[in-house]
Amino acid sequence: MSQPAAARYAAADWGTSSFRIWLIGETGEALGERRSAEGMTTAAKTGFSAVLETHLEAMGASATLPVVICGMAGARQGWVEAGYLDTPAALSDIVRHAVVVPDERRDIRILPGLAQRDAVRPDVMRGEETQLLGSVGALSGTRLVCMPGTHSKWVRVTDGKVERFSTFMSGELFDVVSRQSILSHAVADAGAFDGTHPAFVAAVAEAMANPAMATNLLFTVRSGQLLHGHGATEAKARLSGLMIGLEIAGATTMTADAQTPVSLVASGPLAGLYTQALTAAGLQSELVDADEAVRDGLAAAAKALWPA
Amino acid sequence: MSQPAAARYAAADWGTSSFRIWLIGETGEALGERRSAEGMTTAAKTGFSAVLETHLEAMGASATLPVVICGMAGARQGWVEAGYLDTPAALSDIVRHAVVVPDERRDIRILPGLAQRDAVRPDVMRGEETQLLGSVGALSGTRLVCMPGTHSKWVRVTDGKVERFSTFMSGELFDVVSRQSILSHAVADAGAFDGTHPAFVAAVAEAMANPAMATNLLFTVRSGQLLHGHGATEAKARLSGLMIGLEIAGATTMTADAQTPVSLVASGPLAGLYTQALTAAGLQSELVDADEAVRDGLAAAAKALWPA
Repeated sequence: MSQPAAARYAAADWGTSSFRIWLIGETGEALGERRSAEGMTTAAKTGFSAVLETHLEAMGASATLPVVICGMAGARQGWVEAGYLDTPAALSDIVRHAVVVPDERRDIRILPGLAQRDAVRPDVMRGEETQLLGSVGALSGTRLVCMPGTHSKWVRVTDGKVERFSTFMSGELFDVVSRQSILSHAVADAGAFDGTHPAFVAAVAEAMANPAMATNLLFTVRSGQLLHGHGATEAKARLSGLMIGLEIAGATTMTADAQTPVSLVASGPLAGLYTQALTAAGLQSELVDADEAVRDGLAAAAKALWPA
Repeated sequence: MSQPAAARYAAADWGTSSFRIWLIGETGEALGERRSAEGMTTAAKTGFSAVLETHLEAMGASATLPVVICGMAGARQGWVEAGYLDTPAALSDIVRHAVVVPDERRDIRILPGLAQRDAVRPDVMRGEETQLLGSVGALSGTRLVCMPGTHSKWVRVTDGKVERFSTFMSGELFDVVSRQSILSHAVADAGAFDGTHPAFVAAVAEAMANPAMATNLLFTVRSGQLLHGHGATEAKARLSGLMIGLEIAGATTMTADAQTPVSLVASGPLAGLYTQALTAAGLQSELVDADEAVRDGLAAAAKALWPA
């Protein structure tokens, strides 16, 4: 295969359990895309270089095409440790702390994560900083950025600088509680639901109104089924709403000003659920596609790394 | 084997995953005790009657010795469904709703659970009502009863009547998060700790002060290890303190009066952890051994069922 004539660099988002790569052209357009489950966990066994080169070859990339990477590939247990930039951190500084992967035939850079070295609320991110760079890095003013997922991040950004952020384990808790706890019986065989499901909307409101009762509200997913005959889809929508409502209750303590605009960086079903939940919480949000955000962030980094 | 001369009845606490039985003598003393892992889940496959008779025979019980049982043996998926007594419920009424197990050669009664058929906070218990009967059933005045465990119960009782109660999934969440989430790495190889561990005490206070941040505080168990080098024992003590602190934050919303006395019905390590956590929360508590409470509750039921 021959490399598309216009490819300037490749950009990869290398997470714990997923790998995505794009070939990017002269004007920033995606000339090709590949996705796989060869995340850090897999690649740490099979070899990061081999995984990357296989995908580049399949896309017809030249042997010297440079590559910019964000995410867990830069973790200690990843390919090459890229360290952390400490908060408060200007998003434009990320690229200056990129590390070069040694002994490779092409120029490969891995972007660092962000660390909040706070005594009480230590926190870390890897990958989301690139989404931030791509979504709100060039905006002025203050906004809260909500980035839902396995480990949701809420980030307070002012004039391109990350002031502070908080990780919430909502997605992972939803997953382990759905599969491993007594609630697994309640949500088994649940059908599809979206953010307009009444049980979801009610659960968001209940968790926000009384976050201290979180682990009791979780139990009502089961007791509601036992005593009120609630169905599995209703139970799952309720469980989802409780986790997201609890997260929003906590996250909104990051700003005393309810008028701070919220940017929701998400894709897939979570985009819809969080849009509805934020509305139910009385917050206006603007949706930014998470895939576009990470690609735009990698593009901004590439532009700084390899000026035309 | 011959039955101890003085045995008047047998009393069993038959939970989801555990079975305990005592032979009780004329003056209420325990003449023998057996414990096994043949809880409801196991007995539903091997046969409840067979499990019970095997243990009675091993203890030398006569063929006609009556048996009183509390717990999940009375659930729908148990031996014989014993239903629920609805709150508000006088603890002394439990025994009037006991069901007889049919077609057995001996007189076997299973005590009902309690149900709170509330639209917003539906809740159920099975087994704890018998501990309540044995611990606070005969006391006057109002108290909060804290019954820690896989599914902790907090119960408001006035003059022997259960007014309302709430189940918190603290124990099960601690378990699934410790074993199945990203925090499993942080707590692996943790040593023993007790309620005086500084990380436990601090975590109780943090969760109580900011329950809305619960799922963020959980993540700090990991980020504290990454950024501050916290050890596994510290991580596990922190995780435990966060779960218990969150529970206490919610449970204390059940009473507007911080002077309401708290009875802690617990045994084993949880008794120490909760005693410390309640003290840290500014609550005075009186410890009642959970094993004694259930045996005393079964004894009270037996006395009403089979008056001398």
